[in-house]
Amino acid sequence: MPDKKPLILVTNDDGIHAKGLKSLVKVAMEFGDVLIVAPDKPQSGMGHAVTINSILRLNKAEYSIKGIEAYSTNGTPVDCVKLAIYTALGGKKPDFLVSGVNHGSNSSINVIYSGTMSAAVEGAVEGIPSIGFSLLDHDENADFCAAEDIIRSMMNASLTNGIPKDNCLNVNIPKLPTEQIKGIRICRQARAFWEDAFEPKKDPSGKEYYWLTGKFNNEDRGEDTDEWALENGYVSVVPVQYDLTAHHAISTLNTWNL
Amino acid sequence: MPDKKPLILVTNDDGIHAKGLKSLVKVAMEFGDVLIVAPDKPQSGMGHAVTINSILRLNKAEYSIKGIEAYSTNGTPVDCVKLAIYTALGGKKPDFLVSGVNHGSNSSINVIYSGTMSAAVEGAVEGIPSIGFSLLDHDENADFCAAEDIIRSMMNASLTNGIPKDNCLNVNIPKLPTEQIKGIRICRQARAFWEDAFEPKKDPSGKEYYWLTGKFNNEDRGEDTDEWALENGYVSVVPVQYDLTAHHAISTLNTWNL
Repeated sequence: MPDKKPLILVTNDDGIHAKGLKSLVKVAMEFGDVLIVAPDKPQSGMGHAVTINSILRLNKAEYSIKGIEAYSTNGTPVDCVKLAIYTALGGKKPDFLVSGVNHGSNSSINVIYSGTMSAAVEGAVEGIPSIGFSLLDHDENADFCAAEDIIRSMMNASLTNGIPKDNCLNVNIPKLPTEQIKGIRICRQARAFWEDAFEPKKDPSGKEYYWLTGKFNNEDRGEDTDEWALENGYVSVVPVQYDLTAHHAISTLNTWNL
Repeated sequence: MPDKKPLILVTNDDGIHAKGLKSLVKVAMEFGDVLIVAPDKPQSGMGHAVTINSILRLNKAEYSIKGIEAYSTNGTPVDCVKLAIYTALGGKKPDFLVSGVNHGSNSSINVIYSGTMSAAVEGAVEGIPSIGFSLLDHDENADFCAAEDIIRSMMNASLTNGIPKDNCLNVNIPKLPTEQIKGIRICRQARAFWEDAFEPKKDPSGKEYYWLTGKFNNEDRGEDTDEWALENGYVSVVPVQYDLTAHHAISTLNTWNL
């Protein structure tokens, strides 16, 4: 732990009033000074979206924990990170960033759709040690007691060891009480995907519209994956990078006659 | 080239009426049957966002090229890919996917913010050979003549050789006439980033709002990067993957005492 109290930026994608955010804030306060910049409404599934075709608002917010500086915005989770640094903090970078706790899993392929994780990835892009936390429980009143213990362990270990450069951590927590969680495992992202479906409905004028739905399939039997860890009672930790280059494919492409 | 005409899904993030989409459709028609599913309005910067908290519309559209089946949607570029497969095509996957031509660069870190590239990444997730094309010209009336030549070369090479599994291609084209383009280079994503800024304005009631703006900095001097290629008159091709695991960081994290 550094001598000076670190400044910790807390954000999420479920919105500033989400229960998961409050758990994260409570634990973050044990480690440093907390600044909240969070969406004013749910922004799940926003991925790495940024607001460039419309305006952004940033409003000072009353937070339910006293003495915490908090802002809400109409923007996305990635906007929250940018607004925090370049507006609320006047260009100063926070020492640490935590995002979540998401109500629902962000394991395997969900990392690319997740606003929670995109905020953590944006933190890594900005050179800030960043962690995204998700609990495998969609309920808005989910029990975050075990999650708080995991956040404490992960923040402690990250502040002590330092998160590897250019990476952030994707931490998923099974829906279990602390005593039933078997441990924390470092994992790779499973090759598990959504088989999408669209549920058609009709509006009052008879015009069709759709809701995105689907079935999650895990065909990856590897025991080194986040899905395996979660199915077996472990917390999964995946180091995530923002360099999307498939470096191993470069030599193959160089054989193409272009 | 396969004997049977491939079915080619064409999408973008600048909207169904963008000039860049039309260039892409024109060239795609030389290679197969074309289906367009594109946003009904600009969706730049939408990253990998999916619409889960509101409804999706999918409307049959009249397209300016005769005989092309086209749909527009209120959704994001990633929604377009999902709606194309699971609604317009009833679950059948297209043989190929092209996204763009984006009006503006999607090189280096822009790949994570780009709706154009996220559509291509979603194609890769679905197992469809996919390419995202971008021209380094934001003008809505940009000249896509050179881009059309590059699209033709890249589609031809990709259909002949096959895009490596689990990857899509991020193709950026310099703003130059064909005869001044020096060639096509396979590259890695440069370590180049935005230094963000927010331009504050006041609405008629005196309340502040912001526009995201910023300055692009490339401090990566590598000659194997997309930025280097583009600055030196080459088309850049970066193979892009959706496995965000920082595999090289796993052994370091395993030394943490968790």
